[in-house]
Amino acid sequence: MPLKFNLHKTSSQSKARLGTLHINGIDVATPVFMPVGTKATVKAMTPTMVEETQSKLILANTYHLILRPGLEVLKQIGGVKKFSAWNNAMLTDSGGFQVFSLAKLRKITDKGVMFNSHIDGQKLFFTPKMVIEAQHIIGADLIMCFDECVTHDATYQYSKEAMDRTIKWAKECKEYHDSNENSEHQYLGGIVQGAMFDDLREYCAKTLVDMDFPFYSIGGLSVGESDTQMHDILSNVMEHMPTNKARYLMGVGEVRDILNAVMEGIDMFDCVMPTRNARNGEAFTMAGTVRIRNSKHKTDESRIEEGCDCYTCQNFSKAYLHHLDKAKEILFSILMSIHNVRFMQRLMTDIRKSIEEDLFIEYRKNMMKRFYDIDV
Amino acid sequence: MPLKFNLHKTSSQSKARLGTLHINGIDVATPVFMPVGTKATVKAMTPTMVEETQSKLILANTYHLILRPGLEVLKQIGGVKKFSAWNNAMLTDSGGFQVFSLAKLRKITDKGVMFNSHIDGQKLFFTPKMVIEAQHIIGADLIMCFDECVTHDATYQYSKEAMDRTIKWAKECKEYHDSNENSEHQYLGGIVQGAMFDDLREYCAKTLVDMDFPFYSIGGLSVGESDTQMHDILSNVMEHMPTNKARYLMGVGEVRDILNAVMEGIDMFDCVMPTRNARNGEAFTMAGTVRIRNSKHKTDESRIEEGCDCYTCQNFSKAYLHHLDKAKEILFSILMSIHNVRFMQRLMTDIRKSIEEDLFIEYRKNMMKRFYDIDV
Repeated sequence: MPLKFNLHKTSSQSKARLGTLHINGIDVATPVFMPVGTKATVKAMTPTMVEETQSKLILANTYHLILRPGLEVLKQIGGVKKFSAWNNAMLTDSGGFQVFSLAKLRKITDKGVMFNSHIDGQKLFFTPKMVIEAQHIIGADLIMCFDECVTHDATYQYSKEAMDRTIKWAKECKEYHDSNENSEHQYLGGIVQGAMFDDLREYCAKTLVDMDFPFYSIGGLSVGESDTQMHDILSNVMEHMPTNKARYLMGVGEVRDILNAVMEGIDMFDCVMPTRNARNGEAFTMAGTVRIRNSKHKTDESRIEEGCDCYTCQNFSKAYLHHLDKAKEILFSILMSIHNVRFMQRLMTDIRKSIEEDLFIEYRKNMMKRFYDIDV
Repeated sequence: MPLKFNLHKTSSQSKARLGTLHINGIDVATPVFMPVGTKATVKAMTPTMVEETQSKLILANTYHLILRPGLEVLKQIGGVKKFSAWNNAMLTDSGGFQVFSLAKLRKITDKGVMFNSHIDGQKLFFTPKMVIEAQHIIGADLIMCFDECVTHDATYQYSKEAMDRTIKWAKECKEYHDSNENSEHQYLGGIVQGAMFDDLREYCAKTLVDMDFPFYSIGGLSVGESDTQMHDILSNVMEHMPTNKARYLMGVGEVRDILNAVMEGIDMFDCVMPTRNARNGEAFTMAGTVRIRNSKHKTDESRIEEGCDCYTCQNFSKAYLHHLDKAKEILFSILMSIHNVRFMQRLMTDIRKSIEEDLFIEYRKNMMKRFYDIDV
C-alpha cells in the first residue's frame, strides 16, 4: 500500500499547505513537527508524555541506534517501536548527517563511508544497502536514503561530488528497499542535497523526483548558514518538488525557520531544540523564550505560559521550576521537556489553523513580532 | 482536631499491627512506606507518578528546604505541598539528622546547633523553635521535633547528653507548636533517641510519652549498626511506646528491616533507597534485586517483575532499561524509580494483607526466603 498524503488546502497567499499523512493507520496532520528520540527515547519523557503533547510522529536516529543498542538487539526484539513502547508513527533518518557530524576518521568513497564510532572508536562501514537494511530492522514507518551531508561552506566542486554520490546512493537504497517485503509498510524518502548551490539543488531535486519516492526531504540545511541563505535555498528548491507528496525539512526547528519553511510549502520538521533547550533551562512561549534560571523567577508564581494546557503549566509555577533547576533535579528536565514539546505542537496547530483560515501570512507576521519582536 | 489513628488489628503472633492514619482528610493505611522527596520532589518522578504508585504520604527534608528554595520562597508561595503540586499527605523531618550528617563545622549547645551549609558554607543556627517555625512555613501535615542524632558508636556519656538535649528540645518544640494556630492542622511527632543504649531509649520514650505527642518516631537507628543491634534496640524500646498512637521508624527502608520493624509494631517508614537504588540500576522484585546493568539483560525481553502493575513493567523490557542505562538516558531514572516505589507499596500492601489474615509471621518468613534466601 503506497504512502497516502492528502493535500487539503494550499494557501492563496503563499505556498503554505495543509494536509494529512496517513502512515500505517495513523493520521498525521501537516505541517507536522516531529520530536526527536535519538536513542529510542525522547529525552526525559516517557512515551505517554510524548503522546500527551499530541505528537503522533517522532524521529529516531539510525546512526545512534546502530551503535546502541545495536541491530542484533533490535532484530531480536522486533524493532525500536516495540522496544521503546511507542505506539504511534516513527521516522528514522539515514545516519548520513551523524556520520558527517559525529563520527571520527571518515573515509568516503562511492561505495559508502568508513568511519570510527564516536562512542568507542569501533570501525564501521555504512553503505546505502546497509543503511536500508538497518532501517528495516529498526522498523520505523518512514525511513530515509543514505546521503552525504556537506558543510555550509563546502566548495562547488565538492558539493557537486557529494550530491552526485547522494543520487547514486539514493538509487541503490531505493532499488534495495523496493525489492524487499518491508517496502509494504516502510516508506523510503529521498533526500535532496546540493549544499548552498541552487543549480545543484535543482538538479538533485529533479533527479530524485524522476525516481518517484513516496516523500521527499531537503537535507543539508540548518548546518551553519544564515537564515536568509537557508530561506533562499529553500525557496528555490521547493519550485522543483512535487506538490502531491509530503516535503520534509530535516533538522529544522527554530520557530522562525519553521514559519519560513511552511511559507515555502514544507510539511514536516524535526529538531532536538525543544528538548535540548528545555534541559538547558529555556522554556518556549508564544511571546518568546523564558530563561527559568533567571533569578527573577525565584518567587514567580506564574506558569511558564498562561493558557498552556501541558502538565507542567497545569501544575507548576516558574518558582518551582527555578528551584528544581537550582537543585539539579531530574524533574526539571522532565517538566521543561513536556512544556517545550507541547509548545511545538501548539505552534503547529496554530499554523495549521491559520492555513485553514487562509491567514497564514498574517499569522507568521504576528508570530515573528511576538516571538522575536521582528517585523516581517 | 487531634490526629486520628485507628488501630484495626494487632497480630496474635507478634506485635505487627494494622491501622489507618487519618491525616487532614487523607486516609493512610498502616504500616505505611513514605517515599522521600528531599528537595520538594521525589527524585525523577512527577507527583502524578508518585500518586500512581499508590503513595499517599511522602516525606520532605526540612534541612534541604531551608537551604533551597528557602523559607522566604515557601512562605510567599504557601508551603511545599502547593509549591510541588502534591495533593496528598506529607511529613517533614526536623533537619536534625541532616545537621549531623551533612553540615560542616557544627557547634552544638543546649540552645541549638550552629553550622555551615553543605551547599555554600553559609552559617546557620538551628534551634528547636526555629525548626518548628520552618516546618510551619513548609506546611507538611506531620512534622517532627528537632533532635540530636548521634553516631552508632557514640559513648554512653555522650549519648546521654544528646538524649537529654533531645528531650529538652522536644519540650521547647511542643510548647511553641501547641501555642501556634498551625497546630490545628499540623501534627508534631516526638523523636525517641538514646543511641544503642536500652536504658537511654527507655528513659527517652517514657519521658516523651508523658508529654503526649500525637505520634512518635524512633530516630537514630539505621546509622551504621548491625541488623541484629537495630532489631534488639527496637524490640526493647517498643515496649515503652503507646499502642494507640502511630509509631514511625525514621530512615528505614530495607525490606528486611521493614519486616523486622513491623513485627515489633512499627507503623511508618521512610527511605531514599527505592529511588536512589533505582538511579543506580538496582530494581526491586519480590524475589530479590535485579542489576539491570548486567550484560545478561541486553536482550532480555522480560519485565523487571512479571505481574507488577507499574507503568514500567506494563510497558518496557529489561532490554530497553538496560539500553537506557548504557545510553545514560534520563528515562532510565524515571522508569526505574516508578518501579521501585511501586514495589515498596506492593510490599506494604502484602504486609498489611498478611496482618489482616493473621499470617504476618509466615509472610515474613516467606519474604525473607524469597528476597534474601535467608531462613528465619
